[in-house]
Amino acid sequence: MLVRGQPYRTICVADDGWSVAVIDQTRLPFAFELLRLQTAEQAAQAICNMVVRGAPLIGVTAAYGVALGLRADAADVGLERVIGLLGATRPTAVNLRWALERMAAVLGPQSPERRVELAYAEAARMADEDVAACAAIGRHGAAILERLGASRGGEPVRVLTHCNAGWLACVDWGTALAPVYAAHDAGIALHVYVDETRPRNQGAALTAFELGAHGVPHTVIADNTGGHLMQHGLVDVCIVGSDRTTAAGDVANKIGTYLKALAARDNDVPCCRHRRSTGRSRTASVTCRSRSARRAR
Amino acid sequence: MLVRGQPYRTICVADDGWSVAVIDQTRLPFAFELLRLQTAEQAAQAICNMVVRGAPLIGVTAAYGVALGLRADAADVGLERVIGLLGATRPTAVNLRWALERMAAVLGPQSPERRVELAYAEAARMADEDVAACAAIGRHGAAILERLGASRGGEPVRVLTHCNAGWLACVDWGTALAPVYAAHDAGIALHVYVDETRPRNQGAALTAFELGAHGVPHTVIADNTGGHLMQHGLVDVCIVGSDRTTAAGDVANKIGTYLKALAARDNDVPCCRHRRSTGRSRTASVTCRSRSARRAR
Repeated sequence: MLVRGQPYRTICVADDGWSVAVIDQTRLPFAFELLRLQTAEQAAQAICNMVVRGAPLIGVTAAYGVALGLRADAADVGLERVIGLLGATRPTAVNLRWALERMAAVLGPQSPERRVELAYAEAARMADEDVAACAAIGRHGAAILERLGASRGGEPVRVLTHCNAGWLACVDWGTALAPVYAAHDAGIALHVYVDETRPRNQGAALTAFELGAHGVPHTVIADNTGGHLMQHGLVDVCIVGSDRTTAAGDVANKIGTYLKALAARDNDVPCCRHRRSTGRSRTASVTCRSRSARRAR
Repeated sequence: MLVRGQPYRTICVADDGWSVAVIDQTRLPFAFELLRLQTAEQAAQAICNMVVRGAPLIGVTAAYGVALGLRADAADVGLERVIGLLGATRPTAVNLRWALERMAAVLGPQSPERRVELAYAEAARMADEDVAACAAIGRHGAAILERLGASRGGEPVRVLTHCNAGWLACVDWGTALAPVYAAHDAGIALHVYVDETRPRNQGAALTAFELGAHGVPHTVIADNTGGHLMQHGLVDVCIVGSDRTTAAGDVANKIGTYLKALAARDNDVPCCRHRRSTGRSRTASVTCRSRSARRAR
């Protein structure tokens, strides 16, 4: 998406054709800086230190980390070592394991001579697939936001979101925020309430930054505020990410999501469904589950 | 309650017999300092700047502020002026208006010569009544906590609270926390989860301070965490203050209380009832309504 009017991805191969450029997300929202990863160790550190975060981006960073590691040693032992190194960075991140298993499956059977080239190609494919999936979420979700906009007679559709499930968590577009960007770009008036998202403030630091950089009107709110806004009819739809989604549609996501889901149910605001909900929200099934159908996060 | 082993009230007449000592709550939890109010203007500033806060304490501070103001001018015009000055500090604080109306009703019919003495006496009565009411909440609530403790076989009763409804918000004991102190002093094992309470952090800064100073085990949590704890059976009771309680038992309190009430209902944790709840929690009726029966806050 746009930053200072320029389109960016969160991760890409740099101009030199081999090192990997990422946005240093620990500096946001105060500084927008690109960091160049040149070794698997630097990729591992970037994941550990939350220079990159968000399940999809972690997966793609690990994939490129494998490519960087193979540049130093593309033999079987080198491949095994780099996958072990990157796999240990965030043991609970399922996308990380998923990405590394995919890289191992693709590269393992190949000769060491071909591995570096194939690793870059597979990582690039992974990134492009992520962008395509997020763009598809955007198209589906924007149609919902458009209907909500029509029902509000052109007044801004008021979206509440929690944490950062925007393009900074992915490669581009984002998951929960993809519909917001797609709708905004299509000229639908929106206003996004951004949960601060304690304790790490991903909403205040990342979501607010990326919405602002792309030009989407928004307000950062304390996490406590969402319920009050919903009680007072000030939220039209609640869209959140999903770290994991079960086959039954249950969602596990950043701490605090559950409280917003309860408030959404109590006030008939469409949202992703949660464990005890009796009804299933159509908006949620689309927004949260399209993504999860492909790759649960 | 205790600070460094010494019992304190949040407000009292100082050793000089006329100035009014308050705890500077803007310095907590980093410094415990008493501030001496010598004029009605200083009392008004203390309310405006949140040196004192909490509905009951604001009321008592205003009452003492009237006494201080009458020292300068006890004529009808002086009485009217000081009540106007203090009444403008926090126009939405109902206890403030209630206290000032009570002072006006008591002092208005009296001759100017008697007003200063009577003002101090009425303010002291108000403070003592507040302490007695809070102590009564403590007795009632401690019985509930004792039953919960027995049902847990002596394991600590896990209490979740939001914002600061402790003795720092009152004169002593507190409202929501009075049962905690009474039970703790009676030897019942407790652990209090303290909501940070964004955006002003009254939980992290004030509730955690006062619990720690009195020796009550506690953990500060992000506001988002309470729902997760309740989902996992880690909260036995949720006790919160009530800024206002309607005749029907509905509670208005610090932003975020509603989200915790929803989570408590969803997980069968006793809590103060909220607007849409179908059942009425006994714990809540006792903890929140005893106080409100006397003087809604």
